[in-house]
Amino acid sequence: MVECTAPATRADGDATKEHILDVASLIFAEKGFDRTTSKEICEAAGVNTASINYHFGGKSGLYKALLYRSHELLIETKVLIKIDESAMSPFEKLSAIIESFVERALCNPRFFRIFIRESILPSPEFNEVMHDVMANRVSPKIEITRRIVADYSGLPEDHRSIDRIIFNLSAPNIMYLIMDHSVAGEIYPTLYNARAEQKEIIRHMKLTTFGAIDAILRDLNRPLPKWSLTAN
Amino acid sequence: MVECTAPATRADGDATKEHILDVASLIFAEKGFDRTTSKEICEAAGVNTASINYHFGGKSGLYKALLYRSHELLIETKVLIKIDESAMSPFEKLSAIIESFVERALCNPRFFRIFIRESILPSPEFNEVMHDVMANRVSPKIEITRRIVADYSGLPEDHRSIDRIIFNLSAPNIMYLIMDHSVAGEIYPTLYNARAEQKEIIRHMKLTTFGAIDAILRDLNRPLPKWSLTAN
Repeated sequence: MVECTAPATRADGDATKEHILDVASLIFAEKGFDRTTSKEICEAAGVNTASINYHFGGKSGLYKALLYRSHELLIETKVLIKIDESAMSPFEKLSAIIESFVERALCNPRFFRIFIRESILPSPEFNEVMHDVMANRVSPKIEITRRIVADYSGLPEDHRSIDRIIFNLSAPNIMYLIMDHSVAGEIYPTLYNARAEQKEIIRHMKLTTFGAIDAILRDLNRPLPKWSLTAN
Repeated sequence: MVECTAPATRADGDATKEHILDVASLIFAEKGFDRTTSKEICEAAGVNTASINYHFGGKSGLYKALLYRSHELLIETKVLIKIDESAMSPFEKLSAIIESFVERALCNPRFFRIFIRESILPSPEFNEVMHDVMANRVSPKIEITRRIVADYSGLPEDHRSIDRIIFNLSAPNIMYLIMDHSVAGEIYPTLYNARAEQKEIIRHMKLTTFGAIDAILRDLNRPLPKWSLTAN
């Protein structure tokens, strides 16, 4: 079972601001931007509208702040750099990325859902922050991941299959985590019976990721990397 | 390249009703339920509000009609039954399901996006139709797929890995198809350069699905099915 630690509170944030962000993330994650009103955030957080305006300039600004926060809470660039610079093998590095990704998402589902939902149906707010987020936050992470996948697979970094491997590494994790549990539970009952299963979910995601890479490499007539999850 | 044929128009539908459904699907798919107004559907379809009220009882009823239609356009139960009852091998049956799934979704992205988005952030309208859709439309499809996966993998039908295989069969397809193209294009440039690539996308989805099944079976110490995409 994944041990969730509370996300670190930021030294530069004041307590009210952090409290509003925290409460708002729960409501936005459940209802989406359009169906959430400033009024219900204020009521849930026990603050008045002036407070949201003062700290964020309104609902739209609050939501944008959450989009930045969401992204940071998923996979931190510094965590990826630490994995990348470690003495681990490429297999272990990729495993560590999958693990960090799933753990983060399981521990912070609300931030994760907010961010991923935007990849599917972007709000005007997301379009405003997207260029900055993509260029300065997503791209460096993709670059590191691309290099590790190239190391692991033996494919050149600019090979089109690298993108596809990264896609297959993230897509099932993402789908698993963003599906509404009452809907998903009816379709996939054994996958959606909760917390005790987390270790098994991580194992499943690793198995299917490495199995998919094998199939792609076999199709390209490339030698297969050796891997085993026995130690996990 | 996938050849898209127009979805069959229904003999029982009148022309105006079909026209409204068609126009509304484009707008709902792009903007989502909350941000779509009856007024813009009327303007785009060249009809007046009375017409939407007459045929669907309003925006909410129109959207519910679209949810049913969307589901039917993805994988038709009769197509699945035809695959299931054919003389194909279990490998060919599973391949045919993946192919049908991707082709349908590529040919009807708007219906697909509407339906899948609801799996992530259900609207009140979806909650109203969900029980009926799940029980009478999704469940029979999942049952057939479960049986074919069991045949292919040699696992018993109630093995928990069956659910996970079906999940892995659909999740990357779904993620690929629902991601907003301007967002996804920045993250996965080689995966999102369009129409000419469709055959390759289907091949990729088959490779990674069967590769993932191999990995799951190897982990369970089960014999691996023989498969090859050479003929495709």
